[in-house]
Amino acid sequence: MLMSLDYALLDALTAVIRSGSFEKAARQIGVTPSAISQRVKLLEERIGSVLVIRGQPCTATDLGMRLVRHAEEVALLERTLGDDIGGGAVGQRRPTIRIAVNADSLATWFIQAMAAVPDCLFDLVLDDQEHSADWLRRGEVRAAVSGSDAPVQGCDCRPLGELRYIATASPDFMRRWFAEGVTAEGLAQAPALTFNAKDMLQARWIEAQIGETITPPTHWLPSSQAFVDAATVGLGWGLNPEILARDAIRQGRLVPLLANAPYDVPLYWHWSRSVATALQSVNRAVTETARAMLLPV
Amino acid sequence: MLMSLDYALLDALTAVIRSGSFEKAARQIGVTPSAISQRVKLLEERIGSVLVIRGQPCTATDLGMRLVRHAEEVALLERTLGDDIGGGAVGQRRPTIRIAVNADSLATWFIQAMAAVPDCLFDLVLDDQEHSADWLRRGEVRAAVSGSDAPVQGCDCRPLGELRYIATASPDFMRRWFAEGVTAEGLAQAPALTFNAKDMLQARWIEAQIGETITPPTHWLPSSQAFVDAATVGLGWGLNPEILARDAIRQGRLVPLLANAPYDVPLYWHWSRSVATALQSVNRAVTETARAMLLPV
Repeated sequence: MLMSLDYALLDALTAVIRSGSFEKAARQIGVTPSAISQRVKLLEERIGSVLVIRGQPCTATDLGMRLVRHAEEVALLERTLGDDIGGGAVGQRRPTIRIAVNADSLATWFIQAMAAVPDCLFDLVLDDQEHSADWLRRGEVRAAVSGSDAPVQGCDCRPLGELRYIATASPDFMRRWFAEGVTAEGLAQAPALTFNAKDMLQARWIEAQIGETITPPTHWLPSSQAFVDAATVGLGWGLNPEILARDAIRQGRLVPLLANAPYDVPLYWHWSRSVATALQSVNRAVTETARAMLLPV
Repeated sequence: MLMSLDYALLDALTAVIRSGSFEKAARQIGVTPSAISQRVKLLEERIGSVLVIRGQPCTATDLGMRLVRHAEEVALLERTLGDDIGGGAVGQRRPTIRIAVNADSLATWFIQAMAAVPDCLFDLVLDDQEHSADWLRRGEVRAAVSGSDAPVQGCDCRPLGELRYIATASPDFMRRWFAEGVTAEGLAQAPALTFNAKDMLQARWIEAQIGETITPPTHWLPSSQAFVDAATVGLGWGLNPEILARDAIRQGRLVPLLANAPYDVPLYWHWSRSVATALQSVNRAVTETARAMLLPV
């Protein structure tokens, strides 16, 4: 069956899944929606299985997603082939690389790495650094910025450096809640900021600094920049990446809860060996930008 | 059955669902994990149904979530009662208000509104402005910032104003892709930025300005601040909230694709009538901040 794979059909499938609708896929490829629909149906007949769950948006079945991944891997390989045989792109597909990245990396250094690879399109999935590698494990992304160096099958891994966090709050907030210093009692009362249920940073920092397990009252705020903004207006205290909080600390709008009490999170770059050649320029950009922006491990 | 609801048991359930684990819930309430486990089990026996799906994290069954919502509504009512009968809090629960908000509102004006209600904890859920009201419809939040004024059953609605977007890119990007002006051909080639599959802003702006339906190649980037950062380093063009892009435009790091071609998105505040009294101060803060920061409709 795989011998007869028709890439025009696969491109239609990929466009439907990535754009979420037959109409958008049609515009992207430059044919009518009914042509897209016929191509997807033909592919489903040849494979003998449903590939697209029709809905708003359209999503892929497991088998459909496996085929989309294959098409994207081939697009990546074609780009490398084009480079190797002297310049011009082979195939018309501009490769889209799907990467899982933690929100704080995106907010601090990852955009710079992306900017160093101008001929790629990036499809970023955000997840906590302790969960981003799961996307790679499930085969849903090609590479991941992860907080763990645990090996992922079929993937290589390289340390990137450490992202430094500082527990910060506004001066008013410090006066109200921590006038007598950052105590266990104060931490049990003062509202904290928590990114989402996966975010353990505040709890880990408390344990490291106070030696006690305290679950403070908290706001839930799933955005890196909103964390800094919320701390600045006095809503709560939270661990902010030093790179994001630096200016506010220098200007006195944010103050560290404790002096000399940073929390450093090591980050690792994992990438799929099946597209390692095609990912070379991305690998280089990510590791070089990380070296410039993160602390050495 | 509801006659005998024991709020100590409900508090244990709520803490497990909101924190995601029996251990964290125990720390939050200040008892042992086995006490929490017994309370949840007792509640499940009394109700006659499973309320918590044990896992990492623990999640609620539909019935469990209904009970959590009830407990949170009661906490909100207790706060109002405390205000009315003269100051002191009734009950020890600090109310947590769950609100669905679009990422661009959070990045531009919503934090300011939150800062004006210091005695509440906020639990924010991010979703596209065209989908945020669905969370309210499903009963998963108490209020929502939405792009639609379509009524939600049991809820009231008030217009907030319009969030202005400007299609922007870096000067280098403009020279590379739009040297001959912003044409249909240029837009079909130049990489755009798209927040996620729900984000229609770029497509709608193209239709409004060019009068054609074009689906440009795109990066997928689910973060408001990353949108501005990515446009600034030349990765793509995208619709950025004027409030976020203003400084970069003034400094010449971003330029509008077209002069006088803003895209204004009206926003509406929806809130549940069942907790309207308790939400009064939040309602006031949200509408007043929006009036100061958004364009009048």
